[in-house]
Formats: sequence, C-alpha cells, structure tokens
Amino acid sequence: MQEVDRIITGGRILVLNEKESHIRDGIVAIDGENIVAVGEKKELENRYIGREIIDASGCLIMPGLINCHNHAAMTCFRGIADDLELTDRLNNYISPAEAKNMNEEMAYWGSMLACAEMIKSGTTTFCDMYLFEDETAKAAKKAGMRCLLGEALFDFPSPNSQTPGEGLDYTRMLIEKWADDPLVNIVVEPHSLYTCSIDLLKNAKAIADRYNIPYATSLLENRGEQEQLFRKFGNSPVAFLKDIGCLTERFIAFHCVSMGEEEINLFAEHGCKVVHNPGTNMKLASGVAPVPDMLNAGITVGMGTGGCAGNNNLDMFAGMDMAAKLHKVHRLDPTVMDAGTVVRMATCEGAKALGLGNITGNLIPGMKADIIIIDLNKPHLTPIYNEFSHLVYTVNGGDLDTVLINGKIVMRDSQLLTIDENEVMERVKEIAVRIRKSLGSTA
Amino acid sequence: MQEVDRIITGGRILVLNEKESHIRDGIVAIDGENIVAVGEKKELENRYIGREIIDASGCLIMPGLINCHNHAAMTCFRGIADDLELTDRLNNYISPAEAKNMNEEMAYWGSMLACAEMIKSGTTTFCDMYLFEDETAKAAKKAGMRCLLGEALFDFPSPNSQTPGEGLDYTRMLIEKWADDPLVNIVVEPHSLYTCSIDLLKNAKAIADRYNIPYATSLLENRGEQEQLFRKFGNSPVAFLKDIGCLTERFIAFHCVSMGEEEINLFAEHGCKVVHNPGTNMKLASGVAPVPDMLNAGITVGMGTGGCAGNNNLDMFAGMDMAAKLHKVHRLDPTVMDAGTVVRMATCEGAKALGLGNITGNLIPGMKADIIIIDLNKPHLTPIYNEFSHLVYTVNGGDLDTVLINGKIVMRDSQLLTIDENEVMERVKEIAVRIRKSLGSTA
Repeated sequence: MQEVDRIITGGRILVLNEKESHIRDGIVAIDGENIVAVGEKKELENRYIGREIIDASGCLIMPGLINCHNHAAMTCFRGIADDLELTDRLNNYISPAEAKNMNEEMAYWGSMLACAEMIKSGTTTFCDMYLFEDETAKAAKKAGMRCLLGEALFDFPSPNSQTPGEGLDYTRMLIEKWADDPLVNIVVEPHSLYTCSIDLLKNAKAIADRYNIPYATSLLENRGEQEQLFRKFGNSPVAFLKDIGCLTERFIAFHCVSMGEEEINLFAEHGCKVVHNPGTNMKLASGVAPVPDMLNAGITVGMGTGGCAGNNNLDMFAGMDMAAKLHKVHRLDPTVMDAGTVVRMATCEGAKALGLGNITGNLIPGMKADIIIIDLNKPHLTPIYNEFSHLVYTVNGGDLDTVLINGKIVMRDSQLLTIDENEVMERVKEIAVRIRKSLGSTA
Repeated sequence: MQEVDRIITGGRILVLNEKESHIRDGIVAIDGENIVAVGEKKELENRYIGREIIDASGCLIMPGLINCHNHAAMTCFRGIADDLELTDRLNNYISPAEAKNMNEEMAYWGSMLACAEMIKSGTTTFCDMYLFEDETAKAAKKAGMRCLLGEALFDFPSPNSQTPGEGLDYTRMLIEKWADDPLVNIVVEPHSLYTCSIDLLKNAKAIADRYNIPYATSLLENRGEQEQLFRKFGNSPVAFLKDIGCLTERFIAFHCVSMGEEEINLFAEHGCKVVHNPGTNMKLASGVAPVPDMLNAGITVGMGTGGCAGNNNLDMFAGMDMAAKLHKVHRLDPTVMDAGTVVRMATCEGAKALGLGNITGNLIPGMKADIIIIDLNKPHLTPIYNEFSHLVYTVNGGDLDTVLINGKIVMRDSQLLTIDENEVMERVKEIAVRIRKSLGSTA
C-alpha cells in the first residue's frame, strides 16, 4: 500500500484518451501537487491509502477547465455596455470607464472576483490579457489558480504604460518576477495587429524567444479588422506574421473569426494555436470562426470566455454549450462539434494551446492535480446516458461541488476555501460605484 | 393597513411596462392567488401587512418564466441521441425509444422531473406537446405549476392512440376534465403539417373553436420541412393555413425557422403567435428563425426550450442567452435582440403567446402571483449595473432562491416544497435503465 495525500473515490471519472470514455467507479490518487494514479476503484483501492479521502459518490470527476482567453479585471465592467454598436460601446463606455478607473486596485479586486467566479464554475487555469497584470498574478496566486498572464501591449499609452517600451519593460519584469512560480506563467501579449506597430510585434516576439515562452495576440476578430489589416499589410496578416517569423508553435491567436483557408493552412503548417471565444464572438456580433475547418486541418484549438465587458460571464460550461450549438446551426449540420470534441477543447486541447499540455487539462499520472468534481444528483442532470453530452448540453456553472488545483482543495461543498468571496464582492461593489459615477449619465 | 397573505420585501423588482425598468427597494403584496400591490417599499410598507414576510434583500424579484414549448416527459431521453444526422437520430434512437418505453408511467415521472427542473430554474408556466398528457397534467398539478397542455395528434398511431379520432377524443377528454382547474389549461395540438392530414388539422381547429381555446403546431422547423410542405400544398403552408381558416389570434406556431416575408406578414395580419426555440434550433441545426423581423412586424413571440431529447435542458436562462447571442452573430449586428426584448419574450410576451397574458408573465395587481426571486449575492452576479443584462447574459438556472406559483410558495431557499425530488430522480433512473436496455447496443 502506498500512502498518498488524497484519494478521490466513488465517482465516474472522465477519460480523455484517443477516444472519450469514462471509468464508472474510479479512484484518483494525489500526492503533493501530482496525480499519482487514476483507475478503477476495484484495482486501485488496495494499492493506495489516502491521508484524506474525498467521497465523490454520485459525482463526475474530470480535469479542471482551461479558460484560454480572459480579461479578468473586466468583471468590474460586467454589463456596462451591452447590445450597442461597437464604436458606441468602445468610445462611450469601455474606453472612458477604463481610462478613469483602471488601476492596481481594480486590477487586483476585479481579477480576484474573476478567480472566484472561475473556480466556482470549474475553471482551474486561465489565460489573461489586460493591464497591471502583476496584480492579476497576485490575485491568482492568492486564489490558488493556475494561469498564463500577459500585459496588453499597445503603440499608444495605456493606464499602465506611457510608451510601448514601458509595456515591454513591464512584461520583462513579470517574466523575471514569476519565473519560478508553480502556478503563475507569463506570456508576451501584443494586443492586436491593428494596435501594435511592426516594431512592437517584433520586439514582443524577441522577448518571447529569449525566455522561450508563448506570445499571444487577438487576430482577425471580425470582418472590419480583416479589411483593415489587409489594407495595412497589402496582404493576409497571417502571411505577414509568417514573414516576420511569428508563426511558431508558441504563437497563440485569440478569436481568428475572419480566417480563410490560406490562413488556416499556414497556422496548421507552423503549429500555431487558436483560442475560440464563442460567447464573445456571438454577443459582439463578430462572426463565426471556422473552428471545424481548423480542427480538420489539425490545429490545436482551445476555448475561452473573453472578458466580462464583452461576454458578461466566465462560465466555461455556458461556453461549451455555445460552441457546440453555434457551429451546428451555422453549418446546418448537427454532427459538427460533437460533445467529446468540445469537452476536449475546454480541457486537454486548451492546455496544449497554452503550452501547458504536459501539466494540466487531463487526468494522467504525473500531471498536476487540477481536478473538478460535479454533483450529478440533480433533476437537470438526471438521467445520465453520456457524460460528455451532460457536460456540454446540461451542466451549468452552478453544479460544481469540489475543485482542486495543483493538488490543493480550493473549493469544497461549493464553498471557496482560498478566497473570502464576501470581501471580494464588497470591494468590487465599491469600485463599481465609482465606475458608474465616472460614466455620468451614459450608464 | 390591509392584511394580506404574503409580502415579498427588500429586493429589486423588475418592471416591464412600456419601457423596462426596476424598483430599487420594493414590495410585492400577495393575497390568495393574486398580486395585490407592487411598488416602492417606502410607499407600500404602511399600507400592507403580511401574515408571512419573504425577505428578498439583495435579491431580484421578477415574473416567473414562461417556457412556451416543451415535451416534458422527454427528460427521460436526455442525452440519448446527440450530434447525429436527423434521420439517424429519429429512426435509430428517438422513435424506437419512444415506441418501447413511452407509457403513462414515463409520462408522469418524466413530466414530474421536468417540473422539478423547471421550477428550480425559474419557470412557472410551461406549454407542453407530447403523449399521455393527462399524466403531465397530473404531474404539473402535483408540482403546482401553471401549464397549457395538449396531446400530440398524428395521422398515424402513437403509443397513446391508434387513430387520429382517438387522439381527438383524448383531447376532448382533457378539455372537459381540466376545464375548471386553476393551473392546468388545455390546447389542441396537431403535431405538424407534415404528420397531419388536412382533415385532422380541420377537426383539431373545430374543437379549439368549440371550446374557445388555443391550438398549436410545429411549423417550418427547418428547410427540409419547408420544401416538403411547399410540395405538399403547392403553395406556402401558411397561405394554406389561412385558406382553411387556421390563422387566428388563438393559433400558436412553434419554431417558424424557415419563414419568409409573406408568412411573417400573414402571421402579423391575423395576430398569430410564434414560439422561438433557439437551443433546439441550434442543436438540431434547423436554422435561425427570423425573430427580429417577426418582432418588427408586431408578432407576439414567446420563447421555449423544446424537450430534453433535442435541447437536453429546460433552462430558460440558457435559452435567453442563446436567443440574444444567436441573432446578433447571425445578423452581424450587436444591437438586435437586446436584453430587455429577450426578457420580455421569456415572460410577458410568452404569456401573451399562450393566451395567458392577463393571468401571468408580469407583476401587476390583479394578475396571479407567479414570481421568482434570484439571489444576486454571488461572484458571477457582481457588480450589477443593469438587471436585464444580468438576466440574459449572466444568471444561470442555478441562481434561483424562491419560486411562487399562483400565490403558493413551491420553492424556498432553493428547496422544492411540492416535489420529492429524490423520489422523482429514482423513478426516472429506473425508467432510464429500461430505455438503455431497449436501445440495445445503439445507446
């Protein structure tokens, strides 16, 4: 008998091997940060003894979800600008709200609120792009969440940097500061091709190369951006990225809505990663990314929610439902984006997209114990014929019972253990009062 | 001071007048089945005294949701046939499962499970079309839910009737039996124009006319049905319905995906009602109903989930999110289907579509007290700038605290009071074992 820190026992375990399947009555053995064993209870119960037992009877045990695109602190702007024309939304709501309110305090408490929401709805890893990301890192660290964070880089001043050079310096600081952290990882993040000069893109790439870390940007989010970039580069923006050496396996592109066959082939050829954000793309009327074509081409596609100023929530279960249904109705084909494919996008494929595929996103011995437990004993989850179907089409963000990240329990019985959620909500409500005032009569 | 049975106090109250708004600190006074007063706390607290006080501090008080299209007992088939071609789905899964398993027992317990799920996710009224609907009526009555139910009528035998005549007789029985019930209402429901003969459609309409009740059918659910019906009638099926006198204010059409300008105009001219089912339409890849055009034409459009063999869940909050986002991305216009419009579709407009607009769907003195209370004190509902935005884009089916129907509390502190949910889940699990066996190796 091997003694381990924790054993999760008695539930169905989701299996993401070559094919999707499940173990009906399984055990996950965890020691320290790591998964030690996963298998049938009858095979493992005489091999492992746990110092702590987590009874998951009647529950589904699965890898934590990977939210591959977020602007965490924008929880503070949740719902200030819905259902508006894009320029009205940006010029009269988001930009002024940001200019007047975005600072270290909002970054920290907004990110902490995002962590609370994400853990409660089953996300264990998130990728973030916003401002004052050191505060987001501190919040994630306090919450015990795994993350890949980057400061948004622009040609123009942001609330956190007056020049592109300052943004790059801040990025270098993040990389050095968090180099050895078990949870916080850093990504270099030029905001987009329409807000960054070619020099800035090249300098960002150089930093990512020097430290051998990922670099990420928003790309071809809608038709307007597509037209603008083709004018700017006189060519496909993806071909331009290839020319300056940006198409590598460490390149992560968010959105990729207005992508054609040529761009998909270039991405596939160079092993670039895509992050699909169905909720944001739908709510902002950006269009429908050709995700089934990307998957057919062999591209690794993860999934994200986007930030709360766009999509309004960080619930990856809602996102999975959207992803499955959007492409079916768009292609008039009920067989595309089947439930297994969508669950993979939200777990193991998402982890691969972020360069964390050996660390998280699956329940495999040797990987970190990022695990969520869903209580299936609810009317809307009864009966159950297929776990993958339930996860995509029926489970919602309120169905989580227990969440472990890096071997540590961060939520138990639906109660957060690392975050004082009442304090966080109070602090954000205070910030929201100021945001409302700053927008005067426009909100 | 007037003494009333119940007072809900201390929360925000959603107001659906000409414009959408809210009362920040309000009171709803309820006596017997009825809403007696709705208004500011400071104005009403000295006029009404409640024998029972429901403290809704920090909550949102709003009309219960109206699920205008369901096949309640199909909860038993939740997830047996996802991501499949339509004929494969129907011929190899749904039809055989139904032929072998659909009986009074499944109708009752499947409907009871649906009621549990609906109440827990904030639905207080549902419209149903399926088989053995007397069992669904009994379940709704036991659960304390308001409903509009009809037996699905076909030209061919169903598990509950060998001939169209038997189906019509069963419908007459339902009408007579439930005539004076405060909660159960009956609708005449020929299944569709492609499964009913012209005689059956006319006979169904005659019964609806005789009793002055609504009649409803699925109509133009996808392009295949559209092509089939144009061939069958040599004309628009809606023009045909007009010719046989079916276009009236009591006519409710489900889906209406493949509807053109001519059909929309005919519907508007005759006051016919439409029920939009975004989740089902997306998952089954049926297409996108022209809902914004219908609303512009002045048609009353309600919203439904469809049954759990199609959409897999009965969560109207998920449906609202889908409805808002689907049309935005489909039209590449972020301003269509704004949050206020969508909330109306799920409440007052839905009630009007079912002919219950004077009874439920809004918080107005004289109407029945069908009220839901949502706990806003949660990370994903913080901060709050706009209630309508939250309801559509952020609230999920797990956020309900209290539900009243017809003046009676059916859920309190998220606990069902009229249904033993463990018993219901056990009964449906037993039925599901038989369903799984009946499908042999195909499920």
